[in-house]
Amino acid sequence: MTTRTRRYVDLTTAEVSEALSRDSVLVLPTGAIEPHGPHLPLSTDLVVAEALGRELVDRGAALGHDVWLLPALSYTKSDEHARLPGTMWLGAHTLFETIVDLGRSIAATPARRVLFVNGHGGNSALLEVACRELRRRFDLQTFLYSGGGRPGPTECGFGIHAGFTETSMMLHLRPDLVDMRRAVRAVPESLAEHRYVGFGKPVRFGWLSDDFSASGVIGDPTPANADQGKVFFEDAVSTLVGAIGEIASFDPGRVLRP
Amino acid sequence: MTTRTRRYVDLTTAEVSEALSRDSVLVLPTGAIEPHGPHLPLSTDLVVAEALGRELVDRGAALGHDVWLLPALSYTKSDEHARLPGTMWLGAHTLFETIVDLGRSIAATPARRVLFVNGHGGNSALLEVACRELRRRFDLQTFLYSGGGRPGPTECGFGIHAGFTETSMMLHLRPDLVDMRRAVRAVPESLAEHRYVGFGKPVRFGWLSDDFSASGVIGDPTPANADQGKVFFEDAVSTLVGAIGEIASFDPGRVLRP
Amino acid sequence: MTTRTRRYVDLTTAEVSEALSRDSVLVLPTGAIEPHGPHLPLSTDLVVAEALGRELVDRGAALGHDVWLLPALSYTKSDEHARLPGTMWLGAHTLFETIVDLGRSIAATPARRVLFVNGHGGNSALLEVACRELRRRFDLQTFLYSGGGRPGPTECGFGIHAGFTETSMMLHLRPDLVDMRRAVRAVPESLAEHRYVGFGKPVRFGWLSDDFSASGVIGDPTPANADQGKVFFEDAVSTLVGAIGEIASFDPGRVLRP
Amino acid sequence: MTTRTRRYVDLTTAEVSEALSRDSVLVLPTGAIEPHGPHLPLSTDLVVAEALGRELVDRGAALGHDVWLLPALSYTKSDEHARLPGTMWLGAHTLFETIVDLGRSIAATPARRVLFVNGHGGNSALLEVACRELRRRFDLQTFLYSGGGRPGPTECGFGIHAGFTETSMMLHLRPDLVDMRRAVRAVPESLAEHRYVGFGKPVRFGWLSDDFSASGVIGDPTPANADQGKVFFEDAVSTLVGAIGEIASFDPGRVLRP
Amino acid sequence: MTTRTRRYVDLTTAEVSEALSRDSVLVLPTGAIEPHGPHLPLSTDLVVAEALGRELVDRGAALGHDVWLLPALSYTKSDEHARLPGTMWLGAHTLFETIVDLGRSIAATPARRVLFVNGHGGNSALLEVACRELRRRFDLQTFLYSGGGRPGPTECGFGIHAGFTETSMMLHLRPDLVDMRRAVRAVPESLAEHRYVGFGKPVRFGWLSDDFSASGVIGDPTPANADQGKVFFEDAVSTLVGAIGEIASFDPGRVLRP
Amino acid sequence: MTTRTRRYVDLTTAEVSEALSRDSVLVLPTGAIEPHGPHLPLSTDLVVAEALGRELVDRGAALGHDVWLLPALSYTKSDEHARLPGTMWLGAHTLFETIVDLGRSIAATPARRVLFVNGHGGNSALLEVACRELRRRFDLQTFLYSGGGRPGPTECGFGIHAGFTETSMMLHLRPDLVDMRRAVRAVPESLAEHRYVGFGKPVRFGWLSDDFSASGVIGDPTPANADQGKVFFEDAVSTLVGAIGEIASFDPGRVLRP
Repeated sequence: MTTRTRRYVDLTTAEVSEALSRDSVLVLPTGAIEPHGPHLPLSTDLVVAEALGRELVDRGAALGHDVWLLPALSYTKSDEHARLPGTMWLGAHTLFETIVDLGRSIAATPARRVLFVNGHGGNSALLEVACRELRRRFDLQTFLYSGGGRPGPTECGFGIHAGFTETSMMLHLRPDLVDMRRAVRAVPESLAEHRYVGFGKPVRFGWLSDDFSASGVIGDPTPANADQGKVFFEDAVSTLVGAIGEIASFDPGRVLRP
Repeated sequence: MTTRTRRYVDLTTAEVSEALSRDSVLVLPTGAIEPHGPHLPLSTDLVVAEALGRELVDRGAALGHDVWLLPALSYTKSDEHARLPGTMWLGAHTLFETIVDLGRSIAATPARRVLFVNGHGGNSALLEVACRELRRRFDLQTFLYSGGGRPGPTECGFGIHAGFTETSMMLHLRPDLVDMRRAVRAVPESLAEHRYVGFGKPVRFGWLSDDFSASGVIGDPTPANADQGKVFFEDAVSTLVGAIGEIASFDPGRVLRP
Repeated sequence: MTTRTRRYVDLTTAEVSEALSRDSVLVLPTGAIEPHGPHLPLSTDLVVAEALGRELVDRGAALGHDVWLLPALSYTKSDEHARLPGTMWLGAHTLFETIVDLGRSIAATPARRVLFVNGHGGNSALLEVACRELRRRFDLQTFLYSGGGRPGPTECGFGIHAGFTETSMMLHLRPDLVDMRRAVRAVPESLAEHRYVGFGKPVRFGWLSDDFSASGVIGDPTPANADQGKVFFEDAVSTLVGAIGEIASFDPGRVLRP
Repeated sequence: MTTRTRRYVDLTTAEVSEALSRDSVLVLPTGAIEPHGPHLPLSTDLVVAEALGRELVDRGAALGHDVWLLPALSYTKSDEHARLPGTMWLGAHTLFETIVDLGRSIAATPARRVLFVNGHGGNSALLEVACRELRRRFDLQTFLYSGGGRPGPTECGFGIHAGFTETSMMLHLRPDLVDMRRAVRAVPESLAEHRYVGFGKPVRFGWLSDDFSASGVIGDPTPANADQGKVFFEDAVSTLVGAIGEIASFDPGRVLRP
Repeated sequence: MTTRTRRYVDLTTAEVSEALSRDSVLVLPTGAIEPHGPHLPLSTDLVVAEALGRELVDRGAALGHDVWLLPALSYTKSDEHARLPGTMWLGAHTLFETIVDLGRSIAATPARRVLFVNGHGGNSALLEVACRELRRRFDLQTFLYSGGGRPGPTECGFGIHAGFTETSMMLHLRPDLVDMRRAVRAVPESLAEHRYVGFGKPVRFGWLSDDFSASGVIGDPTPANADQGKVFFEDAVSTLVGAIGEIASFDPGRVLRP
Repeated sequence: MTTRTRRYVDLTTAEVSEALSRDSVLVLPTGAIEPHGPHLPLSTDLVVAEALGRELVDRGAALGHDVWLLPALSYTKSDEHARLPGTMWLGAHTLFETIVDLGRSIAATPARRVLFVNGHGGNSALLEVACRELRRRFDLQTFLYSGGGRPGPTECGFGIHAGFTETSMMLHLRPDLVDMRRAVRAVPESLAEHRYVGFGKPVRFGWLSDDFSASGVIGDPTPANADQGKVFFEDAVSTLVGAIGEIASFDPGRVLRP
């Protein structure tokens, strides 16, 4: 068979059996529909995740990797934004069961390797739990990429949400959906003074976006720009394409096992 | 506010509060990723549902309706195809909880009216249950459109799956994804002899697609063509656009209640 | 063994093994305990379902069919009446799990065919979902009969609940439980004007009984009478008895499969 | 209103509001469909529970008690018989959720007192858990009667299942369903030698009916007779009727609370 | 292997495989964190259950029994105290699933016998349900010891909670945690007048601790003393040690099965 | 009230109301019962978490902090060790619901701040999800400390499980439970060569402990020693005590909110 596409859903049922094998890598983007301040659309995480997944599969396939794109999960676990207008969120258990069901489905194809390309930080912990669950229940090899970018100079180390990174990426990917005139800085500087409790510090904390500010922004979008967004995006794609090679042959115990 | 878009997810959080009102209609396409015989892609139901949703919102908005498009649910309840290769399916409970969570999310916006534009017959019964659940729990007005098209002349009244209707629609919408050379007729003619048990007869039955044939087809795609597909599609869009007017003012008890 | 009964529960454990085979048909009536206006009892759907089940099994057995009656499910999914006094209802998930548990139990007997004789329209969609679930999980052949009767002349096509059909059937089956002096017409005539949205129209909707009227009636019981009830009931029994023959040998793919 | 019936389901919706009050007692029989040896039908527990409920309500009402009969739960938690033919059983969670849903429904009527008349020992512990759940969640007063009878002279203190008590009761209530020629004694005498572990001893144990014998009998039905069955049944009814008076005014803290 | 310990968790993974066999008995204490009046700590049930488990395993092992102590479940089903300050409680389903998960884990070791040493009466019914569930699902032999002690002379037969028995036991085990100056009698004497409804009477009832009194006490702690507590505790330990012998060889059907 | 203890469970119900306030910090250690190679006991994570919790509360209270110790959760989510002997594990959903129930219980006390002191890396992601859930559902401030220590010189950056850190800590805390003669190095060196996929690298992966080696060790315990263990332990305690001050006044949005 000459494979005409690397979109999984463009295959017929028979082609799935023919085109996929144990070492095929299925790529599942996970977005979110949630507030991103007054300057970015609800779709921000979905736009980024889908763009990353698409680029990864296109470039990966061009390099000869056996990689396939699944439709993104648009609606995910955005419970931290539950109190702000517009959020469309699944509860933790609902998203978990969705992924379990997809894992069971994937395990019925010839493929055994799945990579989640995650655009929403609020999904990361749950996806990590799910990666293990799919590993154990369905004997899938599971992988998780979450994020990309880095805090901007005015973010005191926090570029958590709708800040420099995400805004720059969106200016690169979908400038038509960004309104920089409304971008406002909202950095929880008091957190920076904390030594023990905070993002990336020894003690993490449970938060809702409105614990910080009414806008839901945690970061500083104001210096964002498309050039920087392109750099962030390309870096992320490069990382992902590089990772595909390691994923395709991943077997952590091959040295240790007899 | 001048609304620049009718894609819900292109709005910002503040715009959701401003642009939507009690009588806004949110449109949620529901597809499926499942076998459609050797000639159609796994995405068939998703392609149709998304196209219908898009056309409905574009034409509806142009006619002045307060109508918004939500991202489609790609993965749904395709358990009848669980034994055929490639199906990506959610269990009944998982899909139900997904819709409950979305209903809860929608109830947190100003909108109170939701229309499911469903491309997969296997979802219809569950969506009907869910429409009532959202009505009761969240006081949403809920609507369900499922299907379109009609059996072809050689289908003995069955155009259930991957037959004349769906194939014609796909030839209209995405001919690049259809391979008519592989289209085969698979009509369960013995069912036509039944008087009491069968599709559309007094006694319905629980079925899996491989109860009928190994191809998963239930119908006859061979006479399908793009012209007919266009007719089916346009009829469906017309129905939906017409329905939007009734949906926006729907209040069944206004005559009966004091 | 000379079978002394066709009530499943009158058998002993050993008799279940002896009397039942793969082609035995178990009949499970599903009623409801819910408001039926001021003139009918809460038990209406249960009375009808049990009477249909009983007649079907008695006449079916007399005709030589291998058919057995299970105790009815009295309490089912009457969530559309949750706001009216007296409703005893199970949530969708509870009823679904009940049927799954019964399916698992049935699969542990020799029998493989189950017919739901449903007296409550609000159960139909859920039972349809359940029919497929039992088909897939337990390899049972599952069948669903729901309803009977037809709208009366003054119902504008709606005889949905506690109207001409149900009242007539009750006057035939249990006239002692009907108080025709209290029967009132409550037909949502505005729905009849709808072209697209409504019962039996292209767009269905989620409703609660008090969306229409405070009485919970959707139809016109006033012209109901026992003679018509007898006709409706006998028609339903005839349909069911006729269906049993088709059910006992049901195999939809026998023509298509190699 | 002159109440024409004490069957809850014979009421109309309006009559529920009129006829019931805070001190009304709803009676819910809980049976089982499960093996009772070679001489008793699967329905044994259901027959007994329904007969007790009926007698209780008829006699209670005649004595002026405000008491109402609900339809029995036929299918309950018979997991201890899961391996024997014919058992129709619900999992613990399914039965629990069923009772929670009924409790929620009852709490929407004027009544606040519920008595479970339980014919199946395997339900007792779960119903006890459920009685507290309904007390806490819905502020219902909940009561549980389970059992009746006592071991026969040849049962070494065990008349657990299908033995002297149940067989005698059935000979009184439904002799047509009993075949005493097949009655066999099956008493786990080794348990009688235990000092610490056993039925009614300090250490209880989890058991399945086939842990004891292939027949599922735990007791000695052979000396059973209708006269003794009548005594057992009448004793149980007397207890229940006597209890209704205490239930109607039950308020355990009235002395202690200020 | 010379076993250095009878604490299960002190073993290494390899030692579990070596030290345990089919007839090993795992002992799981179940406490509670809940109000015990003004004179006893929240930990009362946990203190008693852990002490009983420890003594049982130490003495049992000294007598040559193959018995092992698991860490206690501290948090259990204390829903009857949900309205009093300080209760840490799991819902019925959560505790049930916890025990199911532990049963599944135990079934993956060589051991097949589990004894619950339960210090909290509110767990008894649920543990009874769970004992059967583990028996059926994982083929474990399961045992349940609940309680000990007996009502004091001034308790009218009720020493249900924080009364003579529990207070005496705590004065024996942890006198530092008891403040007898605050001990108050709270006996629901009206219950003693009941003939049919009450603790240990034919009709049980669902109760919350604040149905009786604001203190949560149901009994009379005032005459409690350490000497009596020692007697109760030693009696309980003797019973448990005696039971271990019967548990290790428990096979109720060995006489009846062919 | 003079508080005699900082063990939450030593309080009486009345003392909970008096002693706790909105700014009290409840400390909940979370351990695990799971394989830690041939040289460490199953209890390792529980021993460490309980010791950290105890020290934190004792020192924190001595410094004037309003901090209280809850009983540890012994059994948690050790699914990555499900295939190795001895693991006692809860499924992800069971542990999640346990923490939700505890959160609900805590929200019924005056306290509003909870710190999880987690000794098992496999819990971290789930606890992170739970921290947000408790924040949203019960308005608790939630905090998570997980880990301590750092990889040893021979671990190639991996000291994931039963390696240098954990072994050293156990040699400090419970040397009687460590058998260094059996300590073996098991470092997945191939992972160190990966650039993109691995612990702490851009792409994480789902793993089971037996993916690496039969011993379940991922690290090098051989150079472990008690002195180093003391340093790791004291560092962790210092961090936790320092964090308590920040936790007690944690309010991330105080600068940003108007």
